[in-house]
Amino acid sequence: MDLEKLFKPKSMVVVGISKSNPLSPGRIIFIKNVFEMQVEVFGIHPKGGEIEGVELFTRLEDLPKVPELMVLAIPAKSTLEYVEQCAEYNIPGCIIISGGFAEIGGEGKKHQEKLRKIAMENDIAVLGPNCIGVYSPPLLDTIFMPTERITRPPKGSVALISQSGGVLVDQFFHKFNQINIGVSTAVSIGNRAVVDETMLLEYFSTKDKETSNIAFYLEAFNPSKSRKFLQLAKESEDDVIVYFGGMTEKGKKATQSHTASLSGNEKILQAALEQYLIIQPLTELELLTDLKLLDILSHKKKPFDPHLVMEGKVAILSLSGGHGVICADLLKNYSLTAVDFTQEEKLEMRDLVNPVARGIATFENPIDLTGSAKDEDLENIIKYLSKIDRIECIIVLILPYTPSITFQIGRRIANTVTMSKKPVICFIPYIPKYGSIIESLELSNIPVFHSIEEAVQGVLMLKKKTKIMNIKRTK
Amino acid sequence: MDLEKLFKPKSMVVVGISKSNPLSPGRIIFIKNVFEMQVEVFGIHPKGGEIEGVELFTRLEDLPKVPELMVLAIPAKSTLEYVEQCAEYNIPGCIIISGGFAEIGGEGKKHQEKLRKIAMENDIAVLGPNCIGVYSPPLLDTIFMPTERITRPPKGSVALISQSGGVLVDQFFHKFNQINIGVSTAVSIGNRAVVDETMLLEYFSTKDKETSNIAFYLEAFNPSKSRKFLQLAKESEDDVIVYFGGMTEKGKKATQSHTASLSGNEKILQAALEQYLIIQPLTELELLTDLKLLDILSHKKKPFDPHLVMEGKVAILSLSGGHGVICADLLKNYSLTAVDFTQEEKLEMRDLVNPVARGIATFENPIDLTGSAKDEDLENIIKYLSKIDRIECIIVLILPYTPSITFQIGRRIANTVTMSKKPVICFIPYIPKYGSIIESLELSNIPVFHSIEEAVQGVLMLKKKTKIMNIKRTK
Repeated sequence: MDLEKLFKPKSMVVVGISKSNPLSPGRIIFIKNVFEMQVEVFGIHPKGGEIEGVELFTRLEDLPKVPELMVLAIPAKSTLEYVEQCAEYNIPGCIIISGGFAEIGGEGKKHQEKLRKIAMENDIAVLGPNCIGVYSPPLLDTIFMPTERITRPPKGSVALISQSGGVLVDQFFHKFNQINIGVSTAVSIGNRAVVDETMLLEYFSTKDKETSNIAFYLEAFNPSKSRKFLQLAKESEDDVIVYFGGMTEKGKKATQSHTASLSGNEKILQAALEQYLIIQPLTELELLTDLKLLDILSHKKKPFDPHLVMEGKVAILSLSGGHGVICADLLKNYSLTAVDFTQEEKLEMRDLVNPVARGIATFENPIDLTGSAKDEDLENIIKYLSKIDRIECIIVLILPYTPSITFQIGRRIANTVTMSKKPVICFIPYIPKYGSIIESLELSNIPVFHSIEEAVQGVLMLKKKTKIMNIKRTK
Repeated sequence: MDLEKLFKPKSMVVVGISKSNPLSPGRIIFIKNVFEMQVEVFGIHPKGGEIEGVELFTRLEDLPKVPELMVLAIPAKSTLEYVEQCAEYNIPGCIIISGGFAEIGGEGKKHQEKLRKIAMENDIAVLGPNCIGVYSPPLLDTIFMPTERITRPPKGSVALISQSGGVLVDQFFHKFNQINIGVSTAVSIGNRAVVDETMLLEYFSTKDKETSNIAFYLEAFNPSKSRKFLQLAKESEDDVIVYFGGMTEKGKKATQSHTASLSGNEKILQAALEQYLIIQPLTELELLTDLKLLDILSHKKKPFDPHLVMEGKVAILSLSGGHGVICADLLKNYSLTAVDFTQEEKLEMRDLVNPVARGIATFENPIDLTGSAKDEDLENIIKYLSKIDRIECIIVLILPYTPSITFQIGRRIANTVTMSKKPVICFIPYIPKYGSIIESLELSNIPVFHSIEEAVQGVLMLKKKTKIMNIKRTK
């Protein structure tokens, strides 16, 4: 089954365009692709005519060419005849937005079985039903939310596959804009009657060169294919991240109704994912931290050697005692460790800072350079720490409100890290006026986070990445 | 000891104004109070003259009046003579910004002991040393960060007391602006040689009418007075929140250096705090959620009856299956429960929604009204759920990208909640264009959070608040 036409069709047809309701899913999809996207789009309406100035066709056979993709946003019971037309006209891809299939049980379940049968017998890549489809910029976007209501992420290298359309739009799209990463293709799989997460993993890891990392929101694996999914993930050159919803009793019950699937036992699942080198964030925050870090590491210009963090041994460099304390507490929570400095190291570091700070700074780990620190103090201490082999990673807590820290601090740290290649993760509080500092670090591919917890999660992600790289290398 | 002059002095004098370094703490404090704040300010410089057009005095005795507050930003060893002058001239308050005291050990420790002795013998309210002082809008601001480098929160009703100046500025000030709450007075206690958290708790809970809630960042209680702190907290009409740093080994070690204090055993501490009705958030996120919710509940117009959440029994109302699933999982993590609906309730709810949603929505808990929901569906279901007594709180997951949801949804929910008085907590993803929906809810004092986790933490906070209210009532 060729999935490519779902994401890169030359032309597509939309069925289910309401003339009376401008907010009907089919109409939103039709109009947004006509005016905003690059794919060639045709619209079908039983009565023909036009909508918002665009011509509609009454039947498939009237189209000037056979489209490569059909998008259906019509009541469930009417979908089957159109899928049969896909077979008849050799249309290789079909996205079914409509709900009312297995997720409502009874008749819906039977409908879905018939749908699957037609698709399998005729080799049609059917996505859905009960999904919001595909966002494949700049070509097509079948997400039935009006564009002005959501934020769409820029083109990038993360492939997103979600069992929930809402999660795709909200937890991924909105947040990707905030953390400045982009997607290659985003896919909502809905009830996955035909195309499922395993097929998509295979497609994106082997056939899509735009993708570097593949992220899933799942509530359960398609049970008959979970083994294949795990094997594909292990063999993939791309990193594979799976964020699971529905792990609790109530959550599980909920997933059964809305996507007609059964989720598995949490602990067995976690162990399996780890064994097959799948990254499994436990919270939404961690999911985004992991994706941000993997995105940075997939850039051509690597900011630092990404496989140095074997055990998670960290030096914390701060300008505020409290920040250092909170960071040290968090390291513990994530099973990472703060290294101990020798007496000699402490004295050498003290000699490196300006005389005012020298009198009041502390050189335990966390290091607190205090509010009297200057740019060059931070730079010198990062250089010094970078040479200590037992330190695998440095967390730098940058507080741009420190009076003698200038807005060049970002660029100066970036230069230092680029020379030393020691993994460095920065925390800078997010307020818009610190933007130039943040940007100077991000342009050099140094990870910057806006909470101390994310910076610590970033180290954990580096540790996981080192482990995965080492296992994949020895194979 | 009268603390009022630390926060509400009629006049103050700043010592330590550098003529050569415009970024020296003393100079920043002097200039910002002259130009930005309302207190009458005098500056001392041994050579007199002027700075940025403002006259300086050479000695305290030259001032036109005796100030009520002295701010010292000079090297540690020079501070004592000025504190002695406070005694001589009957200046009741003194803020010592300077570091180099107990936190560096040795000589510094001795200095601090002398300082304390003078202050106690002469009844001078000394704040610090090694602190950033006080922000008491609109009167004074001794925080030595240039104002354009930070964001200062608006006037409000939360008193903030922090053992770390960095945490005060970053974890509190920056975030308060983001979550739209304000402070009555903010205090950095530094080494707390004289004025400590216990004295401040007493002051803010009994003498400051602007304050409704009192929040602390502490790394340890002042050991000799922890019992009094707990007792004061229990008796306080205000809610008391303590967020602790330095709970791990490394964190503990760090607190010893930067604030010269020893922290206690985590579990004993937690049990004591709970017994004395102190709210103890475990993460930064929870801290802010708690403060936001308490701030809302301290408004005159209560959005709902705040003491209904006895056990944390929740109904989840969503427009996306995935969001409901994630929320149900999180309830479990926070030991809250999703109530079960009866078959009859499910059928009755189904009858309340529009025909398209009716066919595909699910009425388990979480309820998923799907992307076909309309404003009135949400409104009707909230009304219905509000009448079910065993539901203590409703979490509404509002996704404003749902095509038929309008930007009036906030106002409509606000009206419904104001009528029913059932506790409701809303989640709305934060993107600026949803601002008017968010604002319409916040103006009606309905809590709105921008992650599902915060919404769930909000319910937990309501549960804690109910418990505290019930205990305080029965006394």
